[in-house]
Amino acid sequence: MIAILKAGVSQAQVDNLIHWLESQGLKIHVSAGDYYTVLGLVGDTGKIDMDLLASLDIVQSVKRVSEPFKRCSRDFQPQDTVIEVGSAKIGGGNFCLIAGPCSVETHEQIIGVAKAVKAAGANVLRGGAFKPRTSPYDFQGLGKLGIEMLTEAKRETGLPIITEVMNINQLPLFDDVDIIQIGARNMQNFDLLKEVGKLHKPILLKRGLCGTMKEWLMSAEYIMSEGNEQVILCERGIRTYETYTRNTLDLSAVPMLKQLSHLPVVVDPSHATGKAKLVPPMALAAAAAGADGLMIEVHNDPPHAWCDGAQSLTPEQFADVARRARAVREAAL
Amino acid sequence: MIAILKAGVSQAQVDNLIHWLESQGLKIHVSAGDYYTVLGLVGDTGKIDMDLLASLDIVQSVKRVSEPFKRCSRDFQPQDTVIEVGSAKIGGGNFCLIAGPCSVETHEQIIGVAKAVKAAGANVLRGGAFKPRTSPYDFQGLGKLGIEMLTEAKRETGLPIITEVMNINQLPLFDDVDIIQIGARNMQNFDLLKEVGKLHKPILLKRGLCGTMKEWLMSAEYIMSEGNEQVILCERGIRTYETYTRNTLDLSAVPMLKQLSHLPVVVDPSHATGKAKLVPPMALAAAAAGADGLMIEVHNDPPHAWCDGAQSLTPEQFADVARRARAVREAAL
Amino acid sequence: MIAILKAGVSQAQVDNLIHWLESQGLKIHVSAGDYYTVLGLVGDTGKIDMDLLASLDIVQSVKRVSEPFKRCSRDFQPQDTVIEVGSAKIGGGNFCLIAGPCSVETHEQIIGVAKAVKAAGANVLRGGAFKPRTSPYDFQGLGKLGIEMLTEAKRETGLPIITEVMNINQLPLFDDVDIIQIGARNMQNFDLLKEVGKLHKPILLKRGLCGTMKEWLMSAEYIMSEGNEQVILCERGIRTYETYTRNTLDLSAVPMLKQLSHLPVVVDPSHATGKAKLVPPMALAAAAAGADGLMIEVHNDPPHAWCDGAQSLTPEQFADVARRARAVREAAL
Amino acid sequence: MIAILKAGVSQAQVDNLIHWLESQGLKIHVSAGDYYTVLGLVGDTGKIDMDLLASLDIVQSVKRVSEPFKRCSRDFQPQDTVIEVGSAKIGGGNFCLIAGPCSVETHEQIIGVAKAVKAAGANVLRGGAFKPRTSPYDFQGLGKLGIEMLTEAKRETGLPIITEVMNINQLPLFDDVDIIQIGARNMQNFDLLKEVGKLHKPILLKRGLCGTMKEWLMSAEYIMSEGNEQVILCERGIRTYETYTRNTLDLSAVPMLKQLSHLPVVVDPSHATGKAKLVPPMALAAAAAGADGLMIEVHNDPPHAWCDGAQSLTPEQFADVARRARAVREAAL
Repeated sequence: MIAILKAGVSQAQVDNLIHWLESQGLKIHVSAGDYYTVLGLVGDTGKIDMDLLASLDIVQSVKRVSEPFKRCSRDFQPQDTVIEVGSAKIGGGNFCLIAGPCSVETHEQIIGVAKAVKAAGANVLRGGAFKPRTSPYDFQGLGKLGIEMLTEAKRETGLPIITEVMNINQLPLFDDVDIIQIGARNMQNFDLLKEVGKLHKPILLKRGLCGTMKEWLMSAEYIMSEGNEQVILCERGIRTYETYTRNTLDLSAVPMLKQLSHLPVVVDPSHATGKAKLVPPMALAAAAAGADGLMIEVHNDPPHAWCDGAQSLTPEQFADVARRARAVREAAL
Repeated sequence: MIAILKAGVSQAQVDNLIHWLESQGLKIHVSAGDYYTVLGLVGDTGKIDMDLLASLDIVQSVKRVSEPFKRCSRDFQPQDTVIEVGSAKIGGGNFCLIAGPCSVETHEQIIGVAKAVKAAGANVLRGGAFKPRTSPYDFQGLGKLGIEMLTEAKRETGLPIITEVMNINQLPLFDDVDIIQIGARNMQNFDLLKEVGKLHKPILLKRGLCGTMKEWLMSAEYIMSEGNEQVILCERGIRTYETYTRNTLDLSAVPMLKQLSHLPVVVDPSHATGKAKLVPPMALAAAAAGADGLMIEVHNDPPHAWCDGAQSLTPEQFADVARRARAVREAAL
Repeated sequence: MIAILKAGVSQAQVDNLIHWLESQGLKIHVSAGDYYTVLGLVGDTGKIDMDLLASLDIVQSVKRVSEPFKRCSRDFQPQDTVIEVGSAKIGGGNFCLIAGPCSVETHEQIIGVAKAVKAAGANVLRGGAFKPRTSPYDFQGLGKLGIEMLTEAKRETGLPIITEVMNINQLPLFDDVDIIQIGARNMQNFDLLKEVGKLHKPILLKRGLCGTMKEWLMSAEYIMSEGNEQVILCERGIRTYETYTRNTLDLSAVPMLKQLSHLPVVVDPSHATGKAKLVPPMALAAAAAGADGLMIEVHNDPPHAWCDGAQSLTPEQFADVARRARAVREAAL
Repeated sequence: MIAILKAGVSQAQVDNLIHWLESQGLKIHVSAGDYYTVLGLVGDTGKIDMDLLASLDIVQSVKRVSEPFKRCSRDFQPQDTVIEVGSAKIGGGNFCLIAGPCSVETHEQIIGVAKAVKAAGANVLRGGAFKPRTSPYDFQGLGKLGIEMLTEAKRETGLPIITEVMNINQLPLFDDVDIIQIGARNMQNFDLLKEVGKLHKPILLKRGLCGTMKEWLMSAEYIMSEGNEQVILCERGIRTYETYTRNTLDLSAVPMLKQLSHLPVVVDPSHATGKAKLVPPMALAAAAAGADGLMIEVHNDPPHAWCDGAQSLTPEQFADVARRARAVREAAL
């Protein structure tokens, strides 16, 4: 950490500050210029409150020398993390297609969609059992029953399954779930992150609606710091002032995160755009940008979907996107 | 709900759509213009997926006629909700000052601050026991011990206490807590909202970092729909592109919410700005804008606070702000 | 335009409003429901102030039935606009590569880069002569001299040229310029838009830093309403809270705009990201999303560029991106 | 400027970089730590492209030691700038009320409003003659005729007048205008800023829709660097994701700017909120936050205003706000 002191501070003030910092176990390098003095803080600077230091009268500004995330950092682990679920691999040059309905609705629906997306090239089946909904009056998901239906679809098709957990107490129901999803609204539900950090299965961590990449990586760090290193990052659009699209898909996050971290990054164009017609072009764009996979909503009968039908593709549309996305990925190399 | 159809749709298409909507239990009013046709949907339109309807080929756009929130709406209850905790009243023309440290640190600290803020005119004592922190390596709060210290400060001073809950399983520890705070990161932790909705004590619901007022009111609705009508809204700044302040305090939310809802609205200028020097002017501005109260961080020794010292006022500074805020409120009438 | 009236308005109030609207030359369709009344306004509603109507006591909300843009709308002209400059075509299935340095610096530099990007497959040469800079103390461009150097590079290579105009009075210098660029900061410089609307040459209109797609199309409409229909839209990133990238490239704008409008859409990944390493993946993503072209900063010696060197590619890097972008485009079909 | 080098760079690499920086006329202080090396750059660092330096392989990050603005900085001039127009003073503890219609419409209207706002305590008359409108089909203002009507209202009432300029060529019409307004959309119209910087009259510079405070101060710097030091900053709301209000009024900008700069800061609650009912509370909040004045839209007949009637107060409402704002200001001291 670097602290830049204001012009005109007295030597006594500088000495006082250094004394205080040293009393917290740090070593201080002083670089005095004609116009300013810079203190380099070496040691466990994690204990220092940056904002507080910056607020002191004699301090002009403070800057971290290194990123605050460790385990998820590319510096910490140069090679890509590769996550395996069933026969699917995510990261390290593999391309993974996660598909399925927004909500699990009926036995027939989820089995039907599962078979269709498998035939179309999907590697993992998605389906919501617990649904975070803005309104308490909207359909909240089938819960336990939904997970049972998903598990049956897994038995029938062999596809590994992913579904979202909304609170700690639901975790015992997730034994047969292959990848646990943390939704955008829970990106900073730190207690939930710590809890899934104790599990031994992959966690797909969606970016929060206004999560910075740094906060997102810090949330991955929460999971990893508890011992679970199998984290998949999922970009799903951020909130901006634009209203033609539900959210603004930030595809530059894909190459940026791959520089900063060794974790796999997948993209969900369905929730990002909220419009089925925009899903194919954004899916292809994600593939071209270097995403390790796509997560796409597919429904056998979008106009009658119980939830988010407006953004769902039919199995035929998904098959077409899947084929083109793989071709784009090849071409982008 | 109003659905505006595209120009040039055929009568058969219109009839088909009407038939489908009627099959879902709605009554449809048709208003055919020269250039467009408008359908008015009457009945329980809560079951209709607006986005899906809007995505149909023949539909140009869809608009709700009424706001989606009910119990928290000013239409539903014209008179202000007034919440009483101990001798404090919040809402309905009363002005409430909530003050205390970001984190409960030690027995001496919390008792000392409690006495100081009481003397300065505070009505409620705040103090964090469970702390949501961006980094897993930062201080996470004293937890149960923190709540015990707060309870002791309450016994010593008579001040009702408020502290934040982070997950459902912590709720049994909150029996002696007078107001339960839902933090910004949990504004859409719907399971937690439902759970505190079953309690019989006031809930202070902070606005999410990128929560719209509508979503925020829908989150209040989650709590109220479970039976708990004692909800206090707390504006604490939203995330924007500006970096000189930690967040952007949206004071226009105060009069806007008071038009839309009967719930009390308080303002937290400390977290919004992140800078102690900006807290007094923004506290006064909030009072002038019609806020029902303020929530301010006060620490007996800001430079040594374990958390958020940069934004804490000293008890003397708080006393000065409290006096001026009450004067501003009088002058604004 | 649709006006939804509040519940409980009296017939006299409704009649008054209808009378007022009719006095402004509109025909009014009334649709009275059990719970609400909807007025359909037919005629030249452009004269009605929507916000004012919405602010009336008896009005709940107001909604436009049709988009406010006309000439740039896909409804108005279903087939793609194709713009020709020299041998380059933009729009209608053609793919155009615009490349060159941020600033024109010297005769040697611009000729050198022009030859290099032509060899690498560029169709149009870009180069800044008038530079909008945040600080008055930064390099402001070579102005007239810069345009002369660009014109010489055009003579040497045959590449058509594009450069930015910053104010009306500079336009006489742009006679030899093939495409005039309106920068992001001038997207709503309405007087400048009207002036370039009187010219007979293509205008590349960049999206403003916080321009909505609707405002952007309305700015295109300003140009087109003066008679110049040759407008190219250029997405270059919008301002969000994220700081790892300079702006957030909104690639979903590409397919969204192509639904709304017949105008060509190109993408500038250089200004959007501000980081050379992110330019290739975002260029490929733009190609996959269906962009009609790319605008990329290329410099023969990025570390010594006078401006924006951090985001410039070398000619070799550009050649590689150009090749892959064309391959991605093929694969995406 | 401080450059922090990456861990593990070789001495040769460091020497190379230092050599390059010294060749640009800078003195370099080296501070080598165990884990990192910090270079302090002393001299005219304005010539160094920060982004380029930060993009070098061996550089981890770069930080400015001092703010990029000079003339408008509180460091440069500790005492408040006070601007005098007629009998009005803005800044330095004075409180100025600027009021009038969005657009000048007729002779009677502007004279009528001018007399009414003067009686209600206004110090300056506002009125739009050139109107920036999102749509080319909306009313664009009376132009020259509007300025003549304003000038007449000035003669009749003695109130100094303020109106907006949209391009350089209009400036000759502004001889009798006392304060020239630069609108939000022109905050970064640098050529216009330079031109008004050559005048000898006050400039009111509105914050751009997505202008940071730093960019805004840099725009003030553009004006001041040409010699005109009479700049008034006007906060008018920034663009966020919230839709209940037209913009989000950032009142924390008031105390923040007053720390950073000696320039006066006024607030426009009318454009910020877009709703007349929100104008009074936000005007009072601005006064409490320490604003040097308010700019409020007042119309004698809001429902028939040609522009922005939804946000206009009547003269009676304005008189009430003016009285309370002055009282709040007193109480806030």
